[in-house]
Amino acid sequence: MKQKLQELKQLLLEVDDLQMATAVLYWDQTTNMPPGGAAARGRQAATLTRLAHEKFTDPAVGKLLDALQPYADSLPYEDDDASLIRVTRRQYEKSTKIPAQLLSDFYTHSAATYQVWTKARPANDFTVVAPYLEKTIDFSRRIADCFPGYDHIADPLIDFNDEGMKAATIRAIFADLRQQLVPIVQAITAQEPADASCLHQSFDENKQLAFGQEIIKQYGYDLERGRQDKSPHPFTTKFNLGDVRITTRVKQNDLNEALFSTLHEAGHAMYEQGINRDFDGTPLGTGTSAGVHESQSRLWENLVGRSRGFWQHYYPKLQAAFPQQFNDASFDTFYQAINKVSRSLIRTDADEVTYNLHVMIRFDLELQLLEGTLAVKDLPEAWHGRYQSDLGIHAPNDSDGVLQDVHWYDGWVGGGFQGYTLGNIMSALFFDTAVQAHPDIPNQISRGQFSTLHGWLKDNIYQHGSKFTANELIQRITGGTLTIDPYIRYLRNKFGELYPL
Amino acid sequence: MKQKLQELKQLLLEVDDLQMATAVLYWDQTTNMPPGGAAARGRQAATLTRLAHEKFTDPAVGKLLDALQPYADSLPYEDDDASLIRVTRRQYEKSTKIPAQLLSDFYTHSAATYQVWTKARPANDFTVVAPYLEKTIDFSRRIADCFPGYDHIADPLIDFNDEGMKAATIRAIFADLRQQLVPIVQAITAQEPADASCLHQSFDENKQLAFGQEIIKQYGYDLERGRQDKSPHPFTTKFNLGDVRITTRVKQNDLNEALFSTLHEAGHAMYEQGINRDFDGTPLGTGTSAGVHESQSRLWENLVGRSRGFWQHYYPKLQAAFPQQFNDASFDTFYQAINKVSRSLIRTDADEVTYNLHVMIRFDLELQLLEGTLAVKDLPEAWHGRYQSDLGIHAPNDSDGVLQDVHWYDGWVGGGFQGYTLGNIMSALFFDTAVQAHPDIPNQISRGQFSTLHGWLKDNIYQHGSKFTANELIQRITGGTLTIDPYIRYLRNKFGELYPL
Repeated sequence: MKQKLQELKQLLLEVDDLQMATAVLYWDQTTNMPPGGAAARGRQAATLTRLAHEKFTDPAVGKLLDALQPYADSLPYEDDDASLIRVTRRQYEKSTKIPAQLLSDFYTHSAATYQVWTKARPANDFTVVAPYLEKTIDFSRRIADCFPGYDHIADPLIDFNDEGMKAATIRAIFADLRQQLVPIVQAITAQEPADASCLHQSFDENKQLAFGQEIIKQYGYDLERGRQDKSPHPFTTKFNLGDVRITTRVKQNDLNEALFSTLHEAGHAMYEQGINRDFDGTPLGTGTSAGVHESQSRLWENLVGRSRGFWQHYYPKLQAAFPQQFNDASFDTFYQAINKVSRSLIRTDADEVTYNLHVMIRFDLELQLLEGTLAVKDLPEAWHGRYQSDLGIHAPNDSDGVLQDVHWYDGWVGGGFQGYTLGNIMSALFFDTAVQAHPDIPNQISRGQFSTLHGWLKDNIYQHGSKFTANELIQRITGGTLTIDPYIRYLRNKFGELYPL
Repeated sequence: MKQKLQELKQLLLEVDDLQMATAVLYWDQTTNMPPGGAAARGRQAATLTRLAHEKFTDPAVGKLLDALQPYADSLPYEDDDASLIRVTRRQYEKSTKIPAQLLSDFYTHSAATYQVWTKARPANDFTVVAPYLEKTIDFSRRIADCFPGYDHIADPLIDFNDEGMKAATIRAIFADLRQQLVPIVQAITAQEPADASCLHQSFDENKQLAFGQEIIKQYGYDLERGRQDKSPHPFTTKFNLGDVRITTRVKQNDLNEALFSTLHEAGHAMYEQGINRDFDGTPLGTGTSAGVHESQSRLWENLVGRSRGFWQHYYPKLQAAFPQQFNDASFDTFYQAINKVSRSLIRTDADEVTYNLHVMIRFDLELQLLEGTLAVKDLPEAWHGRYQSDLGIHAPNDSDGVLQDVHWYDGWVGGGFQGYTLGNIMSALFFDTAVQAHPDIPNQISRGQFSTLHGWLKDNIYQHGSKFTANELIQRITGGTLTIDPYIRYLRNKFGELYPL
């Protein structure tokens, strides 16, 4: 059995080598590549992706998994070998159950849709992309149908990003969250808005980067096993567990941009850096789901990085780095500015309180599209209706409405959004549990010390990689299931202090 | 036939995609990678290299080549399709004739040798690496024997880097060159040495890089299809014909380092950038040989970049960039400094006149090692003897003697050195021919204009990629064979003016 396991690992390592090389190609493309390299680079990445897929879906992998199943069954559930076999089998089934022809047709369609969308959005013309979106929904249903036995047609699609999560559960949790959030947003936005002008002065770009990098080093992001570069959109990428990189973008006149995206991406990166090194090169060697990954980026960005205690330590340092800009701004002015809540149209620009409303609108609409209870032609109106009822705001066009996010136009419809809000909910749940275990954590944060929190997260979440699903992790950590209570409590406490609720 | 040709091109493109991705991995490794990434990166690059080799040596490639041979035979020699089939077949034979087991055993041995060498050089201990080198020579002979019918056992090894060149021809050319060079070196080094101290002041590193980059842009290096980064050793790499990058290293107290390595690498890069874009992704889409490639780096570094006319235009600009350092240095002082000739131990630091003596010593010794007329145990003594007779200098140790270059310790022995000197010889031959066609080129260089020269090189050399061998190119361009006359004339003219000969 050990020999068969070795064979499996060898095959998986080759797949991983190809995937990680593809990640390097993509990283280089967005950080360094001269314009002339674009055409061939796209083809090179596609070739490597195809070769990795061919190797992973090779029947030899399936045979090895079958042969190893009795061995896995003989081991405890959380044994490394048992987990490797279990998680690899799940991914193998996901990769092999969709017929190659269907997938290839879908990719062709998807590439065409993306091209149309890149023109439709600036032209504010939903009608040109609508027929493509209809086809995408049809493809999405056919892909879901490759995994029969689901409760809701979105379940298999959700499962790709948030394994084990189901539409019905998420819908119930989101309905609850929405019910609590809408009145909070109403109460806050009825009040005098915070003055965030102190963040919109002129800030030297290199100083901004240096300030953020100093913080994430103290967080525990290991620059011996990572680095930060600039790119048009911030992201985290990994070439192996010893090389986990982040990117950011810097705006000279907006301190929010580089600083909080740096803290956000560092959260993702610390998760990957904290995975058991023995899992490197296997399907266990990566974060377990979109939601859990996002819980870490949001925890370090928001629960730590936008907290009062954190800035009690760092605001004097920020003032020292930018004396001209901040010597006349009080701590409270700054703290209110970085936590300003407002009704806004764009998801990616939204604050902590309203962000989830944006996400849940998209999640609800995509379920309806998949169910057939909402027609594509009625989507813009449904979008505007929900923005009116949830956020009290009406987009003047579809560019900042239904055409806003790339998700529905460069992949299938379903499963791409829920992770953002599941992550926010989990961020508070995990943080709350960590503080219960180590009540000194908030005080440590006010002193710029993060090792207790980081250590708890490593021990309880990071090290496991993909060994446990999100629900399994939550069960292990809290003894229960996903609940929004800590998250609502967190928002009420924090924003109740800023805005009387 | 067109369909079979399409199939071949498709297979070759996949091989190229893997090879170019490997080049990106290597580039990233030397320019950006954090220390933690090293172990996995080596494995990833090895996997991609292996996959590329497996795909290229697949019998399907051989069958397609066989099927296409009648088509190739029906076309003119220089037809693109005929050339693709011809050059691919040559490479296919080189890649398939060495048994996989022999190659794999050799790589294992080679990796071990390299490890020993990295310790032997600083320890000045040739004896620990000598038994490895003996094995390497044995491997080199066995690899050469995979290509029976050679005149000299080094011929097949030379052919890998300088296709069509033979030991006997090169030996004769080198003997002639040596005979002319040794007295020139003696005559020059008997005179008062130039004062190069103006190059060894303190120079801002970014200003050094900016100055070099401005020149290579004017040369015609296209930064829309390239970029420059810093790395421990300068090199040129290509990810496709639209993305040809160079690297350099900067020394704060040595202006030579970044400046001339930038001009050198730009020569390599302009060659690749000038190749017919239709050849991209095929074996035709790269420079044709080590020697021709080096002819371009040396032409732009030395024949242009160290010439009197060139600096008549650029020295005032250098003075403007570094006024404190150069306002008191006359043009002649500077020009003598960048062309200082001296007896030195290290090949890579050598000047234009002595450089070839270093190379030819290595070439002669490796032929003797392969022939068996020189034993490994006698190599250090033979090395010192040749340095004494050719350069009039004696290394105090083997670290700066026979252990100096990595070539013999990370690959086979034979074929790795001749390209440097063949390149120097060809650089003058090509430049001479270009000036015969366009006598105004030297005047243009004195005005900082390079488009006539660059255009001639593109038309006569660059565009052809690997279509013609070095000898074929020389025949097409000059109507004759390789001759050292223009090179000797160039050295005599230039250095005769600096040092009365």
